[in-house]
Amino acid sequence: MYRTHNCGEIRLSDADKTVTLSGWVQRSRKMGGMTFVDIRDRYGFTQLVFNNETNAELFDIANKMGREYVIQITGRVAERSNKNANIATGEIEIIVEKLQILNEAQTPPFTIEDNTDGGDEIRMKYRYLDLRRNNVRSNMMLRHQIAFETRRYLDQLGFLEVETPILIGSTPEGARDFVVPSRMNPGEFYALPQSPQLFKQLLMVSGFDRYFQIAKCFRDEDLRADRQPEFTQIDCEMSFVEQEDILQTFEGMIKHLFRFVKNIDFNDNFPRITWHDAMKYYGSDKPDIRFDMRLVELKETVTGNNFVIFDSAAYVGGICASGCGTYTRKQIDELTDFVKRPQVGANGLVYIRCEMDGTFKSSVDKYYSNSKLKSIAELFNAKLGDLILILAGDKIKTQKALCELRLEVGEGLCLRDKNVYKPLWVVDFPLFEWDEETRRYYATHHPFTSPNLVDIPLLDTNPGLVRATAYDMVINGVELGGGSIRIHDSNLQKRMFELLGFTPEKAQAQFGFLMSAFQYGAPPHGGLAFGLDRLVSLFAGLDSIRDCIAFPKNNSGRDIMIDAPSKIDQMQLDELNLVVKINESNIK
Amino acid sequence: MYRTHNCGEIRLSDADKTVTLSGWVQRSRKMGGMTFVDIRDRYGFTQLVFNNETNAELFDIANKMGREYVIQITGRVAERSNKNANIATGEIEIIVEKLQILNEAQTPPFTIEDNTDGGDEIRMKYRYLDLRRNNVRSNMMLRHQIAFETRRYLDQLGFLEVETPILIGSTPEGARDFVVPSRMNPGEFYALPQSPQLFKQLLMVSGFDRYFQIAKCFRDEDLRADRQPEFTQIDCEMSFVEQEDILQTFEGMIKHLFRFVKNIDFNDNFPRITWHDAMKYYGSDKPDIRFDMRLVELKETVTGNNFVIFDSAAYVGGICASGCGTYTRKQIDELTDFVKRPQVGANGLVYIRCEMDGTFKSSVDKYYSNSKLKSIAELFNAKLGDLILILAGDKIKTQKALCELRLEVGEGLCLRDKNVYKPLWVVDFPLFEWDEETRRYYATHHPFTSPNLVDIPLLDTNPGLVRATAYDMVINGVELGGGSIRIHDSNLQKRMFELLGFTPEKAQAQFGFLMSAFQYGAPPHGGLAFGLDRLVSLFAGLDSIRDCIAFPKNNSGRDIMIDAPSKIDQMQLDELNLVVKINESNIK
Repeated sequence: MYRTHNCGEIRLSDADKTVTLSGWVQRSRKMGGMTFVDIRDRYGFTQLVFNNETNAELFDIANKMGREYVIQITGRVAERSNKNANIATGEIEIIVEKLQILNEAQTPPFTIEDNTDGGDEIRMKYRYLDLRRNNVRSNMMLRHQIAFETRRYLDQLGFLEVETPILIGSTPEGARDFVVPSRMNPGEFYALPQSPQLFKQLLMVSGFDRYFQIAKCFRDEDLRADRQPEFTQIDCEMSFVEQEDILQTFEGMIKHLFRFVKNIDFNDNFPRITWHDAMKYYGSDKPDIRFDMRLVELKETVTGNNFVIFDSAAYVGGICASGCGTYTRKQIDELTDFVKRPQVGANGLVYIRCEMDGTFKSSVDKYYSNSKLKSIAELFNAKLGDLILILAGDKIKTQKALCELRLEVGEGLCLRDKNVYKPLWVVDFPLFEWDEETRRYYATHHPFTSPNLVDIPLLDTNPGLVRATAYDMVINGVELGGGSIRIHDSNLQKRMFELLGFTPEKAQAQFGFLMSAFQYGAPPHGGLAFGLDRLVSLFAGLDSIRDCIAFPKNNSGRDIMIDAPSKIDQMQLDELNLVVKINESNIK
Repeated sequence: MYRTHNCGEIRLSDADKTVTLSGWVQRSRKMGGMTFVDIRDRYGFTQLVFNNETNAELFDIANKMGREYVIQITGRVAERSNKNANIATGEIEIIVEKLQILNEAQTPPFTIEDNTDGGDEIRMKYRYLDLRRNNVRSNMMLRHQIAFETRRYLDQLGFLEVETPILIGSTPEGARDFVVPSRMNPGEFYALPQSPQLFKQLLMVSGFDRYFQIAKCFRDEDLRADRQPEFTQIDCEMSFVEQEDILQTFEGMIKHLFRFVKNIDFNDNFPRITWHDAMKYYGSDKPDIRFDMRLVELKETVTGNNFVIFDSAAYVGGICASGCGTYTRKQIDELTDFVKRPQVGANGLVYIRCEMDGTFKSSVDKYYSNSKLKSIAELFNAKLGDLILILAGDKIKTQKALCELRLEVGEGLCLRDKNVYKPLWVVDFPLFEWDEETRRYYATHHPFTSPNLVDIPLLDTNPGLVRATAYDMVINGVELGGGSIRIHDSNLQKRMFELLGFTPEKAQAQFGFLMSAFQYGAPPHGGLAFGLDRLVSLFAGLDSIRDCIAFPKNNSGRDIMIDAPSKIDQMQLDELNLVVKINESNIK
């Protein structure tokens, strides 16, 4: 071992001990005949002292060491005269007696500090140096801890972690599958799993009863800001359970993680909201409930006052921003610009100020009397000094725009504190989504999701109203995970396929394999999956999942550090029976 | 929840309780007006009783249930008159009051029993049914436990599990890389990692200090009996350590696993043997030391007696099979056939029987006097009634053949008990292997393996003698894992590349990326990797790693259950800018 202690553990109680440390030179300061060097490792910093008077030779070497040199020192622990309460080793320093430079270092392209001077691009190129920074490494440590505690919780409950294969088969609709040519099976391809869904359901058929896996999944899709081509899921499935069992089990898991990783106790049950109410009150299936500010529907109240925009809109709704009655014209204009952004998509914004004198001022007060405005304000339980913001238009689009506006206003009011965590189950998702374009139903979740058994009669009469036994866990407006109870009754499954427009042949081609397995005795089962990357981001208070992945890829799916993907040898292509032929239409 | 208890937990103390169980019908026996059904889940079996007299309707339904039906029952726990001490629930049975068939089942293509009637092929095709068998599932449970305890041990020692990417870059010599075409980067490919070697070394450069990962690795090679295209490694790396630190840490890990998984305590240090001695005494770099029977070199002793085979051989050596002096001519002929098999490759077998009267009988006694045979026997410390078996020829080939013979004889003498575990470190591997054909040295381990610093002067004079700081852990003749201390000194690394015949340009092309990273301050580091599949096989006493993998592939790399790999759509190929063109020369 190149050390007796690490750089974060020596305390005043170790005074006078002779210790050996190894690590990186963080910084050095020459003050007259003394040089102070901070040595760093994963565990912390320790101050080293080199003294020209007592050891001129070491002093000279020490002064030549650059940042990030790797050194090993032996010395005596001494009490500092100038203590630093900010670091754990701040009461001591090491009077160095021996020094060995284990490795020199070039000057890094950016500073290895929490607040580095390096931009995104260069930090990604030199990710191995970026990972030296404490705040980046601490995200990886948090990730380790979350994964470990997840396993500890699930192991205690009898869940078995089973590794399912990475080289699987491509499915007929696996449009976003990554594929892997097989050398041994010319012209054939494996696919990388988008999720272990098929295998975890098979494991239930196998009687594994409780399965989980922290599993790598892959999706070859155009990457939005917060997606990665490979991502990690906490994938779980249970047999002989109903929805309530799953919610209890995994609410327990999230509570366990908060307790053991963040030291936060949730004593109450997590609130639950139906998908229908989530849309109605928050305009979103993943509401951020750190603050209230619910959407209020106004269509009935505002119609019939000759304001054509409201009269002609399918939906009119608003939110009440508490205490924002003092917003200036400019602030309201900014909110108007915000809702008009293409990502939000509203046409305009109507406001009602609840003045401190009990009167109302509004952008539409030529249509609405003060008493009418008052009755609107009452729907919001608005108080003096509040500001009501109203949008109108198509129902779903406007609800979503109101959701964005609500988050924006909440942000402005500092109601979205990253250190406050508000978990929520969203339940009763619709089983089907109607697609206007193709004029057919699609499965909201996937075709194996069980309908709420109470709603089965509606399958014949009004499929759009059938609720699924599907559920999402949402924290602070982030969908952390979700799942469903699966159909285990083959007649019900057939009915589902019919409703989804699958011919028996197509159902067979696409899902036949799982259907066959089910004929040998499938238990009732259900499960869910959490996104580990999102969970870590949430716990770390990060804006992007990229920051909690050791070696992430950029928006083009490239690892710029190792420069992958890249061209491969012709010989290798020949062995794989492949010819590269760039389709011009693929070049964007 | 579809149950109040699982099928393995009800005891006599639960008598008279009303319970609900769910599971699969294992078997049913009709005895007059009673039908007994064993219900099975992951946790065990419970006997159910249906009585024609008390409930004829249930009785009729019960009699129609086939094997593997999924059922839910409610009933009263009763003491059995006919107790079964072989199963945990053998003292009780359930008098069924309610029965619900949750799912019917087709008759499985083989019996779901420990000793099934299903052959390999059909069990693999219906792997989800094979996994229902207790002995198969118990391997998966063992695998879970080993992985969990591995993580628990390493976590306690401050190791961080870091996920390294699965989509990486292909290396110029990555001949056995699986590749993945990138849709977003036309004509370019990712590769799947053969190991996380590069990334774990980078994490050391990043100051992670102690890393591990239970990592999927991939190798597209022709599969021998016990290889899989995807396999799992317990991959580890540490900074600021020497070989001794790594051996201690991971000997501790293996002891931890034996203690917590197998309930076996190893109180002593694991023995260590040098590679040189392993070859000399066992003819193998992975000796099975459950039994002694060491190889003895005889060349000096046997030369000069006009027996031309021994006189002309570069190496003559033998083993002494204790108590086998009574082997018949037929038994010795069988051993002779064994050593002549192409896989073993010897030309013949010489024996010396140590008769009970103190005389010696040998296939070569016309060349060797009894006193000469006695002096040979003394080299083996042979006792009356022992059998000495001798091979001659090229040194390495003959040592290997003797190794095979030793294992065969040991097997015959029941000296290779699967319940006895004998761990061993093999150390001091040679740094280089000389290849006669290309007349150059190759790295035995990989080009980053550090030489034993004591041997550095030999790099200039006799590289073949330089020992590596590389080590393997071997248990019962199985190489479970291995690793090395890496070179962190760039001058030494350059010297290594020279010796391995890399031009600076080639070294740059192949390893330049890691070399660049090292210039920013690489700590001394080293590590190792264990094969999880092999570890589980060893703990489970399995002959093949396939049996401890939930969904393995066959010798052609196919998953016959899901029928992967397979052809993919033309549209998908177009999107990937690929054309399949089968090279006839690839068809074997």
